[in-house]
Amino acid sequence: MTRCNLLMSNMPHYNFTYDTIHNTIRNTAIAIAEHNYEPDYLLAIGGGGLIPARIMRTYINRPILTVSLSRYSDESGSKPANEPVKLQWLETNIDLMGKKVLVIDEVDDERTTLEFTLQHLFESHPGAEFSVFVVHNKKKEKKGQLPEHIKHFFVGEEIEDYWINYAWDAENIDIFGK
Amino acid sequence: MTRCNLLMSNMPHYNFTYDTIHNTIRNTAIAIAEHNYEPDYLLAIGGGGLIPARIMRTYINRPILTVSLSRYSDESGSKPANEPVKLQWLETNIDLMGKKVLVIDEVDDERTTLEFTLQHLFESHPGAEFSVFVVHNKKKEKKGQLPEHIKHFFVGEEIEDYWINYAWDAENIDIFGK
Repeated sequence: MTRCNLLMSNMPHYNFTYDTIHNTIRNTAIAIAEHNYEPDYLLAIGGGGLIPARIMRTYINRPILTVSLSRYSDESGSKPANEPVKLQWLETNIDLMGKKVLVIDEVDDERTTLEFTLQHLFESHPGAEFSVFVVHNKKKEKKGQLPEHIKHFFVGEEIEDYWINYAWDAENIDIFGK
Repeated sequence: MTRCNLLMSNMPHYNFTYDTIHNTIRNTAIAIAEHNYEPDYLLAIGGGGLIPARIMRTYINRPILTVSLSRYSDESGSKPANEPVKLQWLETNIDLMGKKVLVIDEVDDERTTLEFTLQHLFESHPGAEFSVFVVHNKKKEKKGQLPEHIKHFFVGEEIEDYWINYAWDAENIDIFGK
């Protein structure tokens, strides 16, 4: 075990397995239905939202759109950017006028990604109604803010401000979370 | 158990769990490295390629782009289309000139999705070099063809032409594959 792994395993952290996340998303889908909210589109924030959005589609069968952000300002991924950088955005010919769009990400940590994404979505597609689903919300002071005109904010699970290991990041899935 | 489920469980089929797929992708990443192939971008074909692409990023840490296809010609998803319909494509200002792009999907069934996607990628981004990774390839006669100028075609696992249940489509993950 490397020093880094050793440190990590001694710090408070979460190991979220695929099945656990799948169930969290199922439970949220039930809560969403109870709110009588029926989105027209799911919109994944890539890369973190890709897997949650695809699982959510099993329960809310709507087309998945994506936007992708990078935390790096250069192509090699070595220079962290001050704010997220748009890697891919919605083509402008995608007509979301009057549509209900559920924006999906894995975790709301400092809220900077959500703030950036939603601000730019409101700019590029002002006629849409946006709601948010995050699998996990860290209970902590947020640096970013959600725009006021977000319709719904659905959280799969409220969690402590610990480090998160997601199953999809596991180099060795056979020992992950065991 | 409904009649449909009963029929399904008696037909030859695969139940691919998350962990199994994760390992298949890891093994393919090792094979890709052995080919000295280092893509600049991963490109998921949505919806099926979203989860495999995100898992692959754990082993090949490159940005994920996406294109999304629909099998339906109308918004309500009730009318099957004769060929895939573009739901979202790469913005034209994404410069892939001279870039190596690994196009990712979950399964190569009749090859029609791959043919459609690659043909249109070659048209929209003719300066890029495209390769393909599918988690599963069904051993069967294909209706579609891969363009000749595909650089690599990586397959996680060659499988029989059976029905596939992917973990992410499970309504109840607690009993999936058990």
